[in-house]
Amino acid sequence: MKLAVHFTPVGVNAGGIAGKPVLVIDVLRATTTMIVALANGAKAIIPAASADDALKLAQLLERGHVLLAGERRAERIEGFALGNSPLEMTPEAVGGRTLVMTTTNGVQALLAAEGGRPVLIGAAVNFSAAAAAAREAFEQAGELTILCSGREKAFGLEDAYAAGRFVEAIVPGKARRALEVNDAVIAARELVRKFGNDWKKAVTASSHARYLKGRGFAQDVAFAVQVDTYQLVPVYADRRVTIPERG
Amino acid sequence: MKLAVHFTPVGVNAGGIAGKPVLVIDVLRATTTMIVALANGAKAIIPAASADDALKLAQLLERGHVLLAGERRAERIEGFALGNSPLEMTPEAVGGRTLVMTTTNGVQALLAAEGGRPVLIGAAVNFSAAAAAAREAFEQAGELTILCSGREKAFGLEDAYAAGRFVEAIVPGKARRALEVNDAVIAARELVRKFGNDWKKAVTASSHARYLKGRGFAQDVAFAVQVDTYQLVPVYADRRVTIPERG
Repeated sequence: MKLAVHFTPVGVNAGGIAGKPVLVIDVLRATTTMIVALANGAKAIIPAASADDALKLAQLLERGHVLLAGERRAERIEGFALGNSPLEMTPEAVGGRTLVMTTTNGVQALLAAEGGRPVLIGAAVNFSAAAAAAREAFEQAGELTILCSGREKAFGLEDAYAAGRFVEAIVPGKARRALEVNDAVIAARELVRKFGNDWKKAVTASSHARYLKGRGFAQDVAFAVQVDTYQLVPVYADRRVTIPERG
Repeated sequence: MKLAVHFTPVGVNAGGIAGKPVLVIDVLRATTTMIVALANGAKAIIPAASADDALKLAQLLERGHVLLAGERRAERIEGFALGNSPLEMTPEAVGGRTLVMTTTNGVQALLAAEGGRPVLIGAAVNFSAAAAAAREAFEQAGELTILCSGREKAFGLEDAYAAGRFVEAIVPGKARRALEVNDAVIAARELVRKFGNDWKKAVTASSHARYLKGRGFAQDVAFAVQVDTYQLVPVYADRRVTIPERG
């Protein structure tokens, strides 16, 4: 059984993950926001690498059912209906809509996971459900990659801590010794040793949390550390993120 | 005072480090190998991004005084005089010569540090001397970036542990609280908590060490964890790595 953590999408080898399960994490904020949008009735989220790509993709879709969402430097992109805040994703705003979304880190991680199967979407807000789904996929495939979005192609504490929490939830203590793990698994688990089960403490210690607070998004950070608010696990397949059990 | 660790060169912002001190680490093996080569009489090491670049650079230099060095997949590049093993860098092999060197990770980190001032070269084999030089640069500039080479654009345990050791050596315990640090500093320090002062234990736990051992380079790993064999701190400036005090 092979378990790998990547702290950023940059080093991920597309060939290495093809057909293998991947769990994508962006606690602040993209995967948190996607989970909320789908929980509140969005039909699907289509990731786009850039604002231009998002516009082009939106033009291919049925008018009136599509919303553009996303941020650059944490702020809503000019002309887009929505930013990247989980608090914007109300049933009124997103119910029945397809979102075309671009973000600095999380969407890029999702695009790097293209080719994985399944590609699961995790965060603190769906932690137990995502861990259960990832464990099942891991046991079936014999391997799993946990892909952190990180921040601007560099290490982000909040996702690395989350990766450590997922590792511990996915693989029971005894079984962990027999695993083949990469170096980042060791570092992620040390962060769990440091912060224990305290999502709030770990996430708010990150530079990204400080940055978001400084830009007026303190409520997003507070929302993102609420564990297990949702029981659903979105899946990225055929270029869109959906809740598959909805059919 | 600002202290940053980067686990890979990918996320480094060239503008952010311009004119600021950088400490570059590639314990397995490039910075270790450079330190040995210079200690054994090499005049300078010129980093090259690729084997082609190395050939072109070598042609610009004085014939008979230049050696090509470097690896791909840990092995000496076809046609090159030297690989990337510290054990090859004997006085007989490198004395009086300029090396043009290309490696998968360490040289790429060095090139990413271009523009830093000074750019210091560290490893376990010159740990105390490099820490002292980095501390001096840090105190003068008020900031320091510790740049790990990592492995194939992803996290490498051996360099991350080394970064944690450098952080603790450069900043005394009490002063650390007043620092502005990035997220990777927190994770690097947790690795020191896990492995203590045991370079051998930390470095041999890395996937890179296992890889090198599997390819017949176990002696290189054993060499790289010998602490403070050398007291010199190479500096990268004007596109070459030298020992500046030699004049």
